[in-house]
Amino acid sequence: MRDFIFENKTKVYFGKDQLHHLHEEISRFGNKVLLVYGGGSIKKIGLYDKVIAQLKEAGAEVFELAGVEPNPRHTTVNKGATICKKEDIDVLLAVGGGSTIDAAKGIAAAAKYDGDDVWDLVTGKGHVTERLPIITVLTIAATGSEMDRGCVISNMETNEKSGFFGESPAVSFLDPTNTFSVSAYQTASGSADIMSHIFDVAYFSKGGCMDMLTRVQEEVLKTVVKYAPIAVKTPDDYEARANLMWAASWALNDFLYDGYFQATVCHAMEHELSAFYDITHGHGLAILTPRWLTYVLDEENAPIIKRFGVNVMGVDESLPLMDGAKAAIDALSAFFFDTLSLKSRLSDLGIDESNFEIMAKKACAPEGVLYGFTNLTPKDVEAIYRMCL
Amino acid sequence: MRDFIFENKTKVYFGKDQLHHLHEEISRFGNKVLLVYGGGSIKKIGLYDKVIAQLKEAGAEVFELAGVEPNPRHTTVNKGATICKKEDIDVLLAVGGGSTIDAAKGIAAAAKYDGDDVWDLVTGKGHVTERLPIITVLTIAATGSEMDRGCVISNMETNEKSGFFGESPAVSFLDPTNTFSVSAYQTASGSADIMSHIFDVAYFSKGGCMDMLTRVQEEVLKTVVKYAPIAVKTPDDYEARANLMWAASWALNDFLYDGYFQATVCHAMEHELSAFYDITHGHGLAILTPRWLTYVLDEENAPIIKRFGVNVMGVDESLPLMDGAKAAIDALSAFFFDTLSLKSRLSDLGIDESNFEIMAKKACAPEGVLYGFTNLTPKDVEAIYRMCL
Repeated sequence: MRDFIFENKTKVYFGKDQLHHLHEEISRFGNKVLLVYGGGSIKKIGLYDKVIAQLKEAGAEVFELAGVEPNPRHTTVNKGATICKKEDIDVLLAVGGGSTIDAAKGIAAAAKYDGDDVWDLVTGKGHVTERLPIITVLTIAATGSEMDRGCVISNMETNEKSGFFGESPAVSFLDPTNTFSVSAYQTASGSADIMSHIFDVAYFSKGGCMDMLTRVQEEVLKTVVKYAPIAVKTPDDYEARANLMWAASWALNDFLYDGYFQATVCHAMEHELSAFYDITHGHGLAILTPRWLTYVLDEENAPIIKRFGVNVMGVDESLPLMDGAKAAIDALSAFFFDTLSLKSRLSDLGIDESNFEIMAKKACAPEGVLYGFTNLTPKDVEAIYRMCL
Repeated sequence: MRDFIFENKTKVYFGKDQLHHLHEEISRFGNKVLLVYGGGSIKKIGLYDKVIAQLKEAGAEVFELAGVEPNPRHTTVNKGATICKKEDIDVLLAVGGGSTIDAAKGIAAAAKYDGDDVWDLVTGKGHVTERLPIITVLTIAATGSEMDRGCVISNMETNEKSGFFGESPAVSFLDPTNTFSVSAYQTASGSADIMSHIFDVAYFSKGGCMDMLTRVQEEVLKTVVKYAPIAVKTPDDYEARANLMWAASWALNDFLYDGYFQATVCHAMEHELSAFYDITHGHGLAILTPRWLTYVLDEENAPIIKRFGVNVMGVDESLPLMDGAKAAIDALSAFFFDTLSLKSRLSDLGIDESNFEIMAKKACAPEGVLYGFTNLTPKDVEAIYRMCL
């Protein structure tokens, strides 16, 4: 069992009647606010107006950065940082999903960085020393960025998607009703992202976790398996949306793990797909995960894969070890591709093998290997990509 | 489903090789330290010397308050507060179990209070406005005080045991090896306390919790059921001690619940037992809980009691509702009184009925009723006490 440090400073307001606290929280940090959001869906659902009303009540001076992309670009982050520096912004208010929040995290750090390109902070050319505080209003259950320290940013000039760690948001507002309008496709993709965080960070790893935490991870996974199909079918089911929303915040949260110790293998492989083809992150993870598990399945890995099948997917415990593990992978595939109706192949997304070699190499950079459940070389990663075609 | 606010600022160092960070954490808060501890068991296990070495490394000026009682007295808290005021203490370092940490929480608040009696803060005559920061080094898995905002203090002059809320400790060091020397009796009592927090706060309540959280609560309960007997039998089993230690910190932690909404019924009844007879808190809870469940068992409460039996205690799911609920209560009794060898009756602890009437009245104060799973009047509480004789 590993030693670990747990600390999470994010204050969470959870529920359907909490946004009226936003003006108080804004006021704690200052008067000048940069409102960061995406393509305008927050206007369609009326959330923009509610947020603006709270900002007025706080007496805030508001600047806006709209149009954050689904895989947020470093150029957009730089734009935000320029506004912060010029206008002496006190606090960032990110209203949206993981991409918007990740962009805000990039801006928060870049705003306090002497250089003028956030990509320096990704590559290590520059270092994060200080950052602006962030408040989030979440609109999709998926990335866990609302309580997590990390951010991932895309550089479309170099086809790179990478990130850095900072602080988790100071305050996050999680209102399940703000996810009622999330499409069936994005709900399914987000659900795959939630599950993948648990798989990738610790559940499918060499060391596993403290027994209690492994059991808790299984309950969070079961929560997704139970409620994602309900949310897909009945988008305004509060119970389903609430459970998915809190599951997402738990899935990438230090309190679910006893420390991190492996590369997040599927995430590393998926980041290359998003960087080259700008696909939906969670969908890429759904396609990759069953193939990855099939590729690494051996006598040593089979017990935890079978256990996942039995405890989470309802696989028959009496099956022999390898059969049970295969049944677990089949059940996961059926969940993603039949129950949640996600397309199962990269070719369905217009991706062919032309970039697999370079993507595999980049996924394994800088050490040339992805350490974890089973260590993967670029050759292994390329083989997994091919299995997804 | 209830709206809720989650915030927990405690930084946790978990594991067997973490105490070397103590001097850094002390230094974050200042130079003058009040070291608070109990009866000296921390000297027997060598922890005192290790802590002193860290304090030296921090260059701290150290004052001591030793001899904190198992149910910490308000007079002891007042002593600590006097030292803090006189010596201008910067930070409290509580080394011990829940009683020592609760005493430190009382001192932290009383040190910043104008009056000279912490009992004013319990009764509401005075108010907590500010407090000193607290660092804890935990030595028993039980109360969860190491990550919780509450403290409970005893006034032996008035036979009262009550408390108030403040902030959770700034930093807590959780090293399972520091609990290797905890006796079988205290391990069993602590385990009953852990389970009772989950029962009392939400699991056995009218509203229950968000589905995901109810499932997670069951896993924490199962963790105790699995590991408490191992720790009782093999006190230096690291895996068992670690799981129990983290289970305790989870059991009284906001992230396990979607808000609080009921009186913690068994705790309210037990506080009177401790206040009048100074018994071990967890043992009192173990005696009360199965009788309380038996007393309130009806068609409405049976489903969650049976569910507990099936999901946590291994009760046969095919049993009819009321039989299943009764089997669940029997299984819990067998766990406390057979597996963990706790004495099952108040009379075994030298307690008779002479104070039941006044204790029942005090347990239901100030409103004359304990709201919750089933609302209880003093008459009900007295009946439950009698069932425990």
